[in-house]
Amino acid sequence: MSLTLTSLKNIPIIRQEDSLADIVVDSLQASSIQLHNEDILVLAQKIVSKAEGRTVNLNSVIPSDRAIQIAVEAEKDARLVELMLQESKEVLRVRPGVIIVEHKLGFVCANAGIDHSNVGSPGDDKAEYVLLLPRDPDESARVIRERIKEKTGLTTGVMIIDSHGRAWRNGTVGTCIGLSGLPALVDERGWKDLFGYTLKATIVAVADELAAAASLVMGQAAEGIPAVHVRGFPYPLGEGSLKELIRPKNLDMFR
Amino acid sequence: MSLTLTSLKNIPIIRQEDSLADIVVDSLQASSIQLHNEDILVLAQKIVSKAEGRTVNLNSVIPSDRAIQIAVEAEKDARLVELMLQESKEVLRVRPGVIIVEHKLGFVCANAGIDHSNVGSPGDDKAEYVLLLPRDPDESARVIRERIKEKTGLTTGVMIIDSHGRAWRNGTVGTCIGLSGLPALVDERGWKDLFGYTLKATIVAVADELAAAASLVMGQAAEGIPAVHVRGFPYPLGEGSLKELIRPKNLDMFR
Repeated sequence: MSLTLTSLKNIPIIRQEDSLADIVVDSLQASSIQLHNEDILVLAQKIVSKAEGRTVNLNSVIPSDRAIQIAVEAEKDARLVELMLQESKEVLRVRPGVIIVEHKLGFVCANAGIDHSNVGSPGDDKAEYVLLLPRDPDESARVIRERIKEKTGLTTGVMIIDSHGRAWRNGTVGTCIGLSGLPALVDERGWKDLFGYTLKATIVAVADELAAAASLVMGQAAEGIPAVHVRGFPYPLGEGSLKELIRPKNLDMFR
Repeated sequence: MSLTLTSLKNIPIIRQEDSLADIVVDSLQASSIQLHNEDILVLAQKIVSKAEGRTVNLNSVIPSDRAIQIAVEAEKDARLVELMLQESKEVLRVRPGVIIVEHKLGFVCANAGIDHSNVGSPGDDKAEYVLLLPRDPDESARVIRERIKEKTGLTTGVMIIDSHGRAWRNGTVGTCIGLSGLPALVDERGWKDLFGYTLKATIVAVADELAAAASLVMGQAAEGIPAVHVRGFPYPLGEGSLKELIRPKNLDMFR
């Protein structure tokens, strides 16, 4: 049994209103990959955000007093901090260089997932553009998945990933921020182990495991590979949602 | 560019003193995989612990007063809690069903990585066996890797993984607990993005990304696939260590 992840070739620089489903289907052809039922397509958050017009010109942002105050502590641009506050439910920690928040989407992440890199300044040298996360990444994934189905007749899974830090470990890992047509969690409780004992507590975050795998293939920043084709996902496809992956605040031991 | 992970067939139930390198090389043949230079082998912690004789009979453990006290709060067997304390540097949180510790190996994990499942009771029905983590998983990986090199002449990477929970997300993900011959982190700081901007802070935990991918292929508990072959890891092999993956306590914001 094999799991194979292949980076897609020829993904152009994405602009607002681009159809990612169309671009991915073209790219599969250019990459000589014949799409099958049950395959999964993993997309980097960045291209989804761009297609959805989530680019913001920092020059259009007026920072609040609170943003100015946090910006000093975080050693960040107060306009950028203002956007981070607007995108978040709660600020968990502020340190020089990093603001850890609970994003409006529910997960805990650094800097509200807002990024400078690979955004570019479309036709305006004085503008400073940053990119917000998609408004509803599960819905973004669903729309792309349905359009792929319309174009190809095939039932696939679609996942959107970003790079997240962890509380106690160095380095980022690819993490699911939205999905459609594949499970988020697989609950193995009640399954028997090799010796016939019943497992007590094993819920596996299979979407996050796949996100990490896809991130490895997207790899290096300069190469800009924002889409990955997956074959051999070892669980049946089905509906998952971001919400399942997020620990409810009342069960959070580390806030 | 593709990353392919294949589960190895015919791995027997591992016993103390088994040579995992020999078993893996045999299994590659049974799985019709021709090993190449730069391939990586990912092993589940459980088989490494078993080969190293890290099985403990709970009936041989006498719990301390502290263990008895924590066991009440955690609703766990006090002998098991005693082992968790012996295996840890610090207890971070105690809740019914879970004890979060800093393991002696440096990482934060639940229940000191001690597991009941798939351990079995070798020839003694009244014994209750549990399995501790390997004493030095980087060294375990190094020994296996060198033995594979002796047997095949090939330079591979070897990684040992376990399933870890996360602070703010539901479900476990495969996580690196030891490695030899592959990088733990890849530092992309200073690389240019697509538009020529220099990236400020992107250190990727590539070993943990690969661990998550391999965990997905090891999959379901009852099937017991404890070893995975990896081809197409997109970074040059080189020396990594578990220590690199662990955030130093003085930089930990969430303890």
